[in-house]
Amino acid sequence: MIRPYLAFDFGGTKNACALFLQEDAHAFHLDALEKRASPPQPDAAYDYATMLELARNVLRGREPIAIGVSFGGPVRAQEGVVVLSHHVAGWENVSLRAKLENEFHARVVVDNDANVAALGETKFGAGAASRISKDRQIEIGAREDATQGKNCSSVLYVTVSTGVGGGWILNGEIYRGANELAGEIGHVVIDPNGPPCVCGRRGCVEQLACGPAIARHARERLINNPARGKILRELIQNDFSQVTALRVNQAALAGDALAREVMDAAARALGFALGNVICLMNPQRIIIGGGVSNAGEHYFEMVRAAARENVMPQLRNAVDIVPAALGDDAPLWGALALVV
Amino acid sequence: MIRPYLAFDFGGTKNACALFLQEDAHAFHLDALEKRASPPQPDAAYDYATMLELARNVLRGREPIAIGVSFGGPVRAQEGVVVLSHHVAGWENVSLRAKLENEFHARVVVDNDANVAALGETKFGAGAASRISKDRQIEIGAREDATQGKNCSSVLYVTVSTGVGGGWILNGEIYRGANELAGEIGHVVIDPNGPPCVCGRRGCVEQLACGPAIARHARERLINNPARGKILRELIQNDFSQVTALRVNQAALAGDALAREVMDAAARALGFALGNVICLMNPQRIIIGGGVSNAGEHYFEMVRAAARENVMPQLRNAVDIVPAALGDDAPLWGALALVV
Repeated sequence: MIRPYLAFDFGGTKNACALFLQEDAHAFHLDALEKRASPPQPDAAYDYATMLELARNVLRGREPIAIGVSFGGPVRAQEGVVVLSHHVAGWENVSLRAKLENEFHARVVVDNDANVAALGETKFGAGAASRISKDRQIEIGAREDATQGKNCSSVLYVTVSTGVGGGWILNGEIYRGANELAGEIGHVVIDPNGPPCVCGRRGCVEQLACGPAIARHARERLINNPARGKILRELIQNDFSQVTALRVNQAALAGDALAREVMDAAARALGFALGNVICLMNPQRIIIGGGVSNAGEHYFEMVRAAARENVMPQLRNAVDIVPAALGDDAPLWGALALVV
Repeated sequence: MIRPYLAFDFGGTKNACALFLQEDAHAFHLDALEKRASPPQPDAAYDYATMLELARNVLRGREPIAIGVSFGGPVRAQEGVVVLSHHVAGWENVSLRAKLENEFHARVVVDNDANVAALGETKFGAGAASRISKDRQIEIGAREDATQGKNCSSVLYVTVSTGVGGGWILNGEIYRGANELAGEIGHVVIDPNGPPCVCGRRGCVEQLACGPAIARHARERLINNPARGKILRELIQNDFSQVTALRVNQAALAGDALAREVMDAAARALGFALGNVICLMNPQRIIIGGGVSNAGEHYFEMVRAAARENVMPQLRNAVDIVPAALGDDAPLWGALALVV
C-alpha cells in the first residue's frame, strides 16, 4: 500500500512542501517537492496560503495520512503551537497543528527547524546507518533498529549560517529541554571579552563562528592590514561591503593567508565549544549543517582538531564531527521522521 | 508484602550498604544502614568482603529481590562491569554484577556514583515531588507519575568536592552518553589560560571550583597579601598547610573579606559554566552536592547569579539551581532507584 506523508518546511525566507511515499515497512521515497521563495515582506497569512497551494500541487488529489512540520522559529512542540517567527510577522501564538488538522483531517506534528533537521540527519542523513541514495529513495530499517545502534542514538546537530543553532537527539528522540529551549550552542559563551552578541552578552559561539562573524572579522583584518589579503581584495573588488563568508572561504581555498586565518579562527572557536559539549554530553556524533558547513574538508579538520584539543584524553577518540548530508532538505526529511 | 531491596555504595574511602523495604506500591523506608571506613590501603577483595559482611548485617536472613550498586569510578553500566577505581587497586574490569548475582541470586544493576546520585536526588531528593521525611520514609508515587512532571524529568547533578563530577537524568532516565562518559562538567574549560588540570588542559571547571582549588587559591592570596585574611589566618594558626575549603568558608562566613573573595570566585566559576550548560541543555533543575555544596545560601546565591548572567534573556527564569537533599546517602537512594 502506498501511504503518502506530507512534509512542510516553513523556512522564513522560503517555504517548501514535499510528498513522501512509503513503499513498504522500510522504504520511503520523495515523490514530489515544491519550493517558493518569499517576497520581501511576507506575513503568516501569506506563508500559510502558499503552503496550502504547494501542498495541493504535490498531493494531486491524494490524502496524506500524516503531516510533519518544520518551523523556522520557537515552537511549543507538545502543543503544536508556534511561538513566533523571527523573520515573518503574524506567527505569534498560532496553533499551526490545529489549523493543519482541520485542513487535512490528518495527524500533525510540529517542531522547530533545528530539532527537525537534527532528527532528519539522524534518521536519514549523516547519522543514519543507511543513507539516502541519489534518487532519494532509502531504506530506513534503521528506524526500527535504533535500539540496536544502527542509527546514532545521541546526536548534536549544529547549523552554522546567519546564526548558530542546534538540536539534540538523545536516546533516539528529540530532546527539547524543560522550556523547549535546549540546543542553543550558538549562545554558549567561550570568550567573555569577545564581540558583543544580540543576546546582550559577549563572546557567544555565534559571534565567533557564524557567517556574518566571519565576514566582519575578515573586514576588520583587511582594514587593519592594508598589505595583506590580496586574493580576497580581488574577489570583493576592494568593496568591503562585498565581504561574505562564502568569499572569505573562496579566497582561503585559493591561497589567501589572511582569509585562511579568519576561516581557521572561526573553525577553532566552534571546535573549542564542541570539545566542551563532548565532555559534558559525550554524544555519539556531531553533525554540522548550514551554509558555513560547505566550507570544505580543511574547515572540518580545523573544527575536529580544536575539539580534540579541548576534551579529556579518554574522549579524544569520541570526537566524531561530520558534515550534514541532506543539505537544504534536512527539515523535510526530518518532518517525515516526525510522523513515521 | 514487604519486599527488601539491597543497596551498595562502593565509595573508595568507605563502603556502605542499606536495606530498603517496600511498604506498598509507593512507599519505601530505610530499614537498616551499615557503613565502614576503609583502611589506608584497601583493595578490591577487601571492599567486596566488607560489603558481603555489611549486607549480612542488614539482611539478617532475608533475601533481597533486587540489588542496586553505586560504584565510585567508571563503570560499563550496560554490562555491569567496573572499569577501575581511582582509589582502590584490583577493580580493573571486574564483572561486579555477575559476582553479586551469583552471591545473592537476585537482579543486580550497577552504575557509577555520579549517575546513581543524580538518579537518587531526582527520584527521592532535591528533584523529587515528595521529599524524604525525617525518618526517611517517603512516598514515591512520583516515580510512576514522572511523565506528568511530578519529578524533574531533566536534571544535571553536580558534585563539588575533591573534584567536580556530574550525572545527567534526561527524560526521567540516566543519560550515559555514547561511551558512558557523559556529565564531565568538571572538565569543561572556561578559562584556557587558567590553572593546569590533571587532564592535561587548563582552566577546567574543576580547577576553579573544587575544594582543593579553593584552598590553593586562598593560600596564594594569603601569601601575596600579608595584611589581609586575618580571620582565616587565625583559623589555620598561620600554618598554610592547614588551609582547606571548609576553613576558607568558615572564615568567609565570619566576615573575612579575602576568604569571601575566594569563595565567591569559586562560586562564580561554577555558575558561569552552569549558565553555558543551561543554554545548551535547558535542564529543569541543577542539583549541587558534595562537600563544597554545604557552604551555605550565600554560595548558592553567587552560583545562581553567575549562571543568570551567562544565559540568554529567555532562559533567566530557567535557572533553577538547588542544593542536594540526600547528603552522603544519595548513592544508596539512587541505588534503590536503579532497581525499583
